[in-house]
Amino acid sequence: MSFTLLHQDENTNARLGKLITAHGTIDTPCFMPVGTQGTVKTLSPQELEEAGAEIILSNAYHLFLRPGTEVIKKAGGLHKFMSWPKPILTDSGGYQIFSLALLRKVNDQGVEFQSHIDGQKHFLTPEEVIRIQADLGSDIIMPLDECVHYPCAKDQAEIAMRRTLDWATRSKLAHSLKLEADSKKQQLLFGIIQGATYEDLRKECAKEIIAMGFDGFAIGGVSVGEPKNLRYNITHFVAELLPQDKPRYLMGVGLPEDILEAVELGIDMFDCVVPTRYGRNGTAFTSEGKLTIRNAPYVEDFSPLDKECSCYTCKNFSRAYLRHLFNTEEILGLRLVSLHNVHFFLDLMRQIHQAIPQDRFLEFKREFLDRYNKP
Amino acid sequence: MSFTLLHQDENTNARLGKLITAHGTIDTPCFMPVGTQGTVKTLSPQELEEAGAEIILSNAYHLFLRPGTEVIKKAGGLHKFMSWPKPILTDSGGYQIFSLALLRKVNDQGVEFQSHIDGQKHFLTPEEVIRIQADLGSDIIMPLDECVHYPCAKDQAEIAMRRTLDWATRSKLAHSLKLEADSKKQQLLFGIIQGATYEDLRKECAKEIIAMGFDGFAIGGVSVGEPKNLRYNITHFVAELLPQDKPRYLMGVGLPEDILEAVELGIDMFDCVVPTRYGRNGTAFTSEGKLTIRNAPYVEDFSPLDKECSCYTCKNFSRAYLRHLFNTEEILGLRLVSLHNVHFFLDLMRQIHQAIPQDRFLEFKREFLDRYNKP
Repeated sequence: MSFTLLHQDENTNARLGKLITAHGTIDTPCFMPVGTQGTVKTLSPQELEEAGAEIILSNAYHLFLRPGTEVIKKAGGLHKFMSWPKPILTDSGGYQIFSLALLRKVNDQGVEFQSHIDGQKHFLTPEEVIRIQADLGSDIIMPLDECVHYPCAKDQAEIAMRRTLDWATRSKLAHSLKLEADSKKQQLLFGIIQGATYEDLRKECAKEIIAMGFDGFAIGGVSVGEPKNLRYNITHFVAELLPQDKPRYLMGVGLPEDILEAVELGIDMFDCVVPTRYGRNGTAFTSEGKLTIRNAPYVEDFSPLDKECSCYTCKNFSRAYLRHLFNTEEILGLRLVSLHNVHFFLDLMRQIHQAIPQDRFLEFKREFLDRYNKP
Repeated sequence: MSFTLLHQDENTNARLGKLITAHGTIDTPCFMPVGTQGTVKTLSPQELEEAGAEIILSNAYHLFLRPGTEVIKKAGGLHKFMSWPKPILTDSGGYQIFSLALLRKVNDQGVEFQSHIDGQKHFLTPEEVIRIQADLGSDIIMPLDECVHYPCAKDQAEIAMRRTLDWATRSKLAHSLKLEADSKKQQLLFGIIQGATYEDLRKECAKEIIAMGFDGFAIGGVSVGEPKNLRYNITHFVAELLPQDKPRYLMGVGLPEDILEAVELGIDMFDCVVPTRYGRNGTAFTSEGKLTIRNAPYVEDFSPLDKECSCYTCKNFSRAYLRHLFNTEEILGLRLVSLHNVHFFLDLMRQIHQAIPQDRFLEFKREFLDRYNKP
């Protein structure tokens, strides 16, 4: 299992690569559809495969609460439980504990919190989070980290960053022991770089995390409410510090335009709920921008969501039909627009994969955004 | 387009047949999944085809209100609008007007009602209902009828029956004129027999409807709250009166046990919302009876819903996973159980198709119900 850098764009930091995991190979830059609770909302695994998903993201925090790690372990792991044969990355739950959970108390040992579902009290340590993800059997796992929101005072950001570093050390050790104990478990462990919007904190964190030696590096604490230019600056700053030979993951990002910006800065991996969340709200991503299917102009529009799209939705259904489904609150509507959106994001990545080896990422990005942003 | 009786069971009135329509051939006895608003709830047309659906039912009343007949006509008809290439039967809306609509006023000319959605006033005549279904382009269409609920006083039932007869005459004429005007429109028109639970009314209605000469005959006004034995008696009574060479449709029926009873009495066609309605509530039909997936015993049950089922759900997902999906309110759960249920009903019909030509319908029915009803 390893990462291979196949091509570096001549004019930008955009990289084409391959990441080999226990359940298959992923072409990078990649987009991971989000299956928070062990299902990418409204879609079947078969549809995800047909849309070309090579890896999905799921969430240790949510699965720990429901159905519980024990159930998934007994099922033979998350792949088998949800019937998804390809790679899975699981998020550690750090972000969820700091955004969803109630009454959390962090100390150096770990974090105590109440479930956002039933208020039940839990205590998680970095070691426990590694064990949970070992039970889930995901291909790429993330260490517990402390994620702060924007804006965050520097002293708070520093405390969270140092705790993230400490927990990373403990996670690495727990993971090594786990690997020794069970040679079949071939899970990649990524390191997460925190430090909010402070360059010196980010730099220190990156230096330490890189020194520990992880299988890949994630930029955490982005997409937490900061302005886009700040996110761009931090991503740029951190990406420059990262080694060339490991995959780089920008957590929770983003919209098509955000992905294109970050690919340009040398990011390899993305995850975001927008394709399915927007899909359930009836907003479709198309090569000519976003489209709100409930709107009146689509009542008698018998063209597909996107003429250039080859997904099941676009090959079979019109905007008029999709509008009817949303108008009558039919679940098939949520499904079909979610499916199209996931396909659209994965197609964006496929187009990026074609542009980079031809050293024309910048042209592609410009062409894409020109059409996408056309009023 | 015609109906062919292929085999008559030696020991019962169960019949094996073939019904040829403009969009394909249907093996009878058949079950029609219900796509009220132009979509079989939660399922895609591709899934319906894979489950083996040969015909679906949709509803003129609902489509007339939303998106409106004009939109579907402009789309090129309902098949194209919803991307379903196989036969469609549309219900006239009689039942819906008498159960869903508000403030209805019936007179001999037609029926005035207010939409159950926005209260808008509409007036529909039998001729208009034929025109609507011509615009929808469905393969089998139903005339506007007056449907009464159970219990219904005899004088009321008689008024409704006579009006149904009058409207049938007018529908037949409108349909003939339509056929002459457009030779491409090859829609089969069925006659509906009303008369509530009164044998003399049913008999008179059947006699008149048969004399008018329709492409098939439907028993209406069942599944409207009457006890099962009464429904059984009426079905038996009316089926005996019907000609052998035309298909017989028992409207809105039913559960697996109801379908088996009615097939035994010589019924050829069924429709019912239960596979998808129960599916969305997390109740699965299995060869060993119904199963409520939310229940605690399934938390760690890694077997499929039904070991003998070959549907996508049963081939890929466990009860434990499905329970998790319902427990976390994930749409995939509604989809997967609905898909299984539709497959189960269609599979029941396929088993009936095998039993009849071997003259073993009664044994099959007994075997099926023995397992299905086992406590």
